[in-house]
Amino acid sequence: MKTDFSRILIYGLGMMGASLSLALRKKNSSAEIVGVVGSPSSKEKGIRLKSADKIFTSEEFSKSPDWESYDLIVFGVPVNTTVEVISKLPSGFKGLLTDMGSTKQEIVHAVESVLTGEHRYISSHPMCGSEESGLEFANVDLYENRLCILTKPSGATDEAYSEIESFWKFLGMSTTEIPAHDHDKILSYVSHVPHLISSLMTNWVWENGCVREFTQNSPLPLTGGGFRDMTRIAGSNPKMWSPIFSSNQKEIYNALLDYRDRLDKLLSELSPEKPLDLKHWESFMEQSRIDRDAILKKQNDSKNP
Amino acid sequence: MKTDFSRILIYGLGMMGASLSLALRKKNSSAEIVGVVGSPSSKEKGIRLKSADKIFTSEEFSKSPDWESYDLIVFGVPVNTTVEVISKLPSGFKGLLTDMGSTKQEIVHAVESVLTGEHRYISSHPMCGSEESGLEFANVDLYENRLCILTKPSGATDEAYSEIESFWKFLGMSTTEIPAHDHDKILSYVSHVPHLISSLMTNWVWENGCVREFTQNSPLPLTGGGFRDMTRIAGSNPKMWSPIFSSNQKEIYNALLDYRDRLDKLLSELSPEKPLDLKHWESFMEQSRIDRDAILKKQNDSKNP
Repeated sequence: MKTDFSRILIYGLGMMGASLSLALRKKNSSAEIVGVVGSPSSKEKGIRLKSADKIFTSEEFSKSPDWESYDLIVFGVPVNTTVEVISKLPSGFKGLLTDMGSTKQEIVHAVESVLTGEHRYISSHPMCGSEESGLEFANVDLYENRLCILTKPSGATDEAYSEIESFWKFLGMSTTEIPAHDHDKILSYVSHVPHLISSLMTNWVWENGCVREFTQNSPLPLTGGGFRDMTRIAGSNPKMWSPIFSSNQKEIYNALLDYRDRLDKLLSELSPEKPLDLKHWESFMEQSRIDRDAILKKQNDSKNP
Repeated sequence: MKTDFSRILIYGLGMMGASLSLALRKKNSSAEIVGVVGSPSSKEKGIRLKSADKIFTSEEFSKSPDWESYDLIVFGVPVNTTVEVISKLPSGFKGLLTDMGSTKQEIVHAVESVLTGEHRYISSHPMCGSEESGLEFANVDLYENRLCILTKPSGATDEAYSEIESFWKFLGMSTTEIPAHDHDKILSYVSHVPHLISSLMTNWVWENGCVREFTQNSPLPLTGGGFRDMTRIAGSNPKMWSPIFSSNQKEIYNALLDYRDRLDKLLSELSPEKPLDLKHWESFMEQSRIDRDAILKKQNDSKNP
């Protein structure tokens, strides 16, 4: 299996793209790495930080797009931009392509519309985002020991799948294949709705007059570590997140409806009209620890945070 | 102001009580520290770990309760047990007392019923709990640089307030005074409901068939750091939390109703019948970051997690 390339284009040299570039260097890839950034100031920063061997702005790149000169192209731009760029690929393009998009249905739909017949586009979702964005936050170990979800559009060759899989494994990742629709449903549960809930929680807490008054009077915040953890992802890069909400609106809506139904059940069980059944609440808490361990694939390791 | 005592009773030598004992030792308190634990096995563990100078089981202590021999008594037991123990105090007891209870209305009510007239009970809530319980999880620095909320029952003297305040400051804490009802409302927002939401989220995610199927097929969990953070407090010690839910049921219910109303608004904004207004979502995310910084009393420090 091929584990190295001679010329890689990272189209979108943000936090994830620049981390990918650094990681390839660390793994002794011999590839020449070319990066595309959005603005002249990012280009300047990228050159200063040596984020890639060559850096173009997207405007520069679009003047003479040399797609055919790369043996791997990785899109590191938001989903909506990825879809736009896919639409500009040469018709019948046969290069090896992937992306790092957070949702899959729109991208797969774009690929299947543009690259008709057999092609070599495998969509990827390396599960290692962060609330930081910008190439200055690049982290050489970002991909190490993390999961990369792979999604195969129809028409993609098995060979392309193997090559993209090897590429991520070369960077230290584990891979798993999930079809686009399942991916977007799962991500709405484990990532998109949690981001919304986290943001919602900060608004809900801070708009309470009592919290506000006593927070202002107190020398330290009134919150403990739990609240701080639960709202760490609140307000994550809005420019990155609003396209995610938009491209996965239906799945997010359905997942949130399911969540609301469960919340309503919780509310009815808490109704102050009757005293709490402590045994019920103990088993609710115990079950949630068991469920968390299952989600995080922990085995006999429930003390590990 | 008095900053040391000669004999301190820590009634309830769990994680917090044992940490208190270790912290007093570290701060060179000359007090003899006597601890009360729930079971013979905890007593044995406490003696082995030197969690206090003397340790009794609650059964042993109840046979000849020498309340008057301490110049400070700290209850380190759950709220329901604290209320029970308060009811057993000698009538007209004038000793200096406090607790570390997570809710205040029930405790203050008990104090005001039992200690009629002038007394020296000031309720405390050191904001440094953890999901761990048991004296083996004691942490000598638990109280350092954390907030202690103080609540004054009616009849408590100003001098007692100053002494309890000095005690926590001696241990490195900052203090702020909040009346019982406001305390319980605030804690329902910043702690109790977040715990419920965290637990609810694990059930909601794991009961989704798609999450379950692909998690089982994947070499690594499908979740990112955000979900892991948001569910860290899920399933926190059920024996500790069910009494908190019970003693603050009404405030928790009201806070959760407020949360549900906001969730319904979010749902209506996400309705797939109309495309998302990206500007609206960006400002929603931006506001949540601003609100979080306000809650956490951050100034020009939004990059700090």
